[in-house]
Amino acid sequence: MKKLVVEFVGTFFLVLTVGLTAVYASAEVAPFAPIAIGVALAVMIYAGGHISGGHYNPAVSLGVLLRGGIKVGSLVGYWIAQLAGAVAAACVATWLKGNPTVASLSVITAPALVAEFLFTFALVFVVLNVATAKATAGNSYFGWAIGLTVLVGAFAVGGISGGAFNPAVAVGLVSIKKFALSNLWIYLVGDFAGAIAAAAVFKLTVSENA
Amino acid sequence: MKKLVVEFVGTFFLVLTVGLTAVYASAEVAPFAPIAIGVALAVMIYAGGHISGGHYNPAVSLGVLLRGGIKVGSLVGYWIAQLAGAVAAACVATWLKGNPTVASLSVITAPALVAEFLFTFALVFVVLNVATAKATAGNSYFGWAIGLTVLVGAFAVGGISGGAFNPAVAVGLVSIKKFALSNLWIYLVGDFAGAIAAAAVFKLTVSENA
Amino acid sequence: MKKLVVEFVGTFFLVLTVGLTAVYASAEVAPFAPIAIGVALAVMIYAGGHISGGHYNPAVSLGVLLRGGIKVGSLVGYWIAQLAGAVAAACVATWLKGNPTVASLSVITAPALVAEFLFTFALVFVVLNVATAKATAGNSYFGWAIGLTVLVGAFAVGGISGGAFNPAVAVGLVSIKKFALSNLWIYLVGDFAGAIAAAAVFKLTVSENA
Amino acid sequence: MKKLVVEFVGTFFLVLTVGLTAVYASAEVAPFAPIAIGVALAVMIYAGGHISGGHYNPAVSLGVLLRGGIKVGSLVGYWIAQLAGAVAAACVATWLKGNPTVASLSVITAPALVAEFLFTFALVFVVLNVATAKATAGNSYFGWAIGLTVLVGAFAVGGISGGAFNPAVAVGLVSIKKFALSNLWIYLVGDFAGAIAAAAVFKLTVSENA
Repeated sequence: MKKLVVEFVGTFFLVLTVGLTAVYASAEVAPFAPIAIGVALAVMIYAGGHISGGHYNPAVSLGVLLRGGIKVGSLVGYWIAQLAGAVAAACVATWLKGNPTVASLSVITAPALVAEFLFTFALVFVVLNVATAKATAGNSYFGWAIGLTVLVGAFAVGGISGGAFNPAVAVGLVSIKKFALSNLWIYLVGDFAGAIAAAAVFKLTVSENA
Repeated sequence: MKKLVVEFVGTFFLVLTVGLTAVYASAEVAPFAPIAIGVALAVMIYAGGHISGGHYNPAVSLGVLLRGGIKVGSLVGYWIAQLAGAVAAACVATWLKGNPTVASLSVITAPALVAEFLFTFALVFVVLNVATAKATAGNSYFGWAIGLTVLVGAFAVGGISGGAFNPAVAVGLVSIKKFALSNLWIYLVGDFAGAIAAAAVFKLTVSENA
Repeated sequence: MKKLVVEFVGTFFLVLTVGLTAVYASAEVAPFAPIAIGVALAVMIYAGGHISGGHYNPAVSLGVLLRGGIKVGSLVGYWIAQLAGAVAAACVATWLKGNPTVASLSVITAPALVAEFLFTFALVFVVLNVATAKATAGNSYFGWAIGLTVLVGAFAVGGISGGAFNPAVAVGLVSIKKFALSNLWIYLVGDFAGAIAAAAVFKLTVSENA
Repeated sequence: MKKLVVEFVGTFFLVLTVGLTAVYASAEVAPFAPIAIGVALAVMIYAGGHISGGHYNPAVSLGVLLRGGIKVGSLVGYWIAQLAGAVAAACVATWLKGNPTVASLSVITAPALVAEFLFTFALVFVVLNVATAKATAGNSYFGWAIGLTVLVGAFAVGGISGGAFNPAVAVGLVSIKKFALSNLWIYLVGDFAGAIAAAAVFKLTVSENA
């Protein structure tokens, strides 16, 4: 239960930052959104990582499950806490800005799907190596490495897919109509497939896999 | 006494940076103000954290008190040193820029209050977890995690509340008329309430609470 | 073989980020390209450093070889994996953006050669000191120090040479015609010479050279 | 001698970055100059800190001397290496850009002097606490804390004094006429006074002063 509170809080602040810097941002703030979002994820990982693992992302939770870091019984609870935090944050961001209407992002399916797959792969590959591998245990960089992978992805493919790399972020943005509901599958398929591929490559390349 | 000198110095440079990058900044520097301010807080935490704890923020001192990190007898001294540093810095920033007049920030009360509450909650939640929890003891990331939480908040809600998350910063900005005196209560109520809520959630989620 | 997979993956994401933020970027993203690229290198070093060393750069592999960190027999494999990752990434970036045509970068030979030499020197000098010197063993900063050296170089001389500091990046950019094939020698000569010079200065200044 | 080579190399890359991002920069790069410069200092500290201490700044060397970290006999060598690196870098930067003429920065004496004093104080205060205090020994953040203090100062007072906080940087910029020779005393007096004040406050606030 403590873990789920932390997953709710962390995902809430991640999606709140997405909403306020990438959805409803001024022209001055918008170019810096990838920095704000990546740092938001990183600081929440440092705050809550020692309690829940600091996933804040259903695809990360799936990748950690496949690597043996959490159990199937925990996965559903994590996903519910993450989705609840994301939807709550999207609504709060909208209210804070005075409930403006927002134009849905239009994406081209194939590149958006590949972009989400590639950078969710990168994100989960980084997570598994810096936060679950024996060879990197005890490091102080895990939160920045994970959070700033999102910074990289948001700069690189934000204009192609919107740059979610996280089904909870996608659901949050669907709830405030920034992402079209008809595109939600792109983020579910792309992000979960990226996580599965990352777990496979991780198992292939790390020898002390326990 | 050593602690109070350090709290004065750290709060001085934090508010000096706020004044010079967010109040009196050129159009070229202003968009980067959240980065400069977050980094200023971080480097001062690394400089002084081993002496005073590196609060530089009355709401953080309150949160640390509620968690048992400092005593009530120390709180008043910390608050006075922080306020003195903030007001001194605001005046120095104004003088360095040739005493220009500054337009007061206008805010809408409800969103500003909620914005200050939310990100001061995030800030104090991060502080308690990265700088006072046993499970994270000895880490090298605490200063960046704390400082860059302010970066996130300043990008996310700087346009809504001004982005203080710190009653000393608010008093400093009132002293140079950037914040209206009639709005000071927003920062006092929002920021101290955020700190109290963060301490409560911290106690709820951390087991080894000693 | 595990090492080569990791070198492929890391170089792939480095060059994918170069392609999407520096070659095919929107006007909003382009100024931030050095940040995205430097961070991309850093996070991939943290992800794969414990497996392959996290070079992702033939010049770095040469520098590490000269310092005794890898064997000659490994060098060719590393180079092939890096080049394959770079060319694959350049093609994927081009496809993701809908196969736009790109204007070749024009450079002035002498300053471009010196710029590549100087910042590849800096990069390999940083690598050898933070990732292979006994005096800095066990640190948590190596990935940021290496990755963000590229950030510095890209800001400083991106306008002079294009800012590769990495023959694999150069080959990737030649493959999509961003760099002219007739200029490729600049990156090969400048970058390998910088790596050789850095290994020499490293050996000169570090006493515990084992 | 090894130490002096490292001080030359580190100061060279610091001033090269200053020249290429703040003196001769394109309009796209110029706003990011404080980030590039602060990071350049940080990565060079990580590269050379274990050999020479990574000062790259005569004011820092003076502060470390006053704290007992180096001997008077070493100070002159450090200063010569730093000045040589700075002047060489300023000339190389000018050559790389095709020897353009540069407009001298005009400053107002009193605020420039105070700005240089304050942020050199902050810089040396951070150095002494994160790199020489027993309570912070073994940390991984020292380079970023020191380097990014310059980022903060450059954003905050770059428009007031030019943001040197380093007599070697000032001499380098005088050598290419970016700083007027008649203003050099501002940087010498302001920066060395800041270092002396920082050493005094450090001794006042740190108890385990050995």
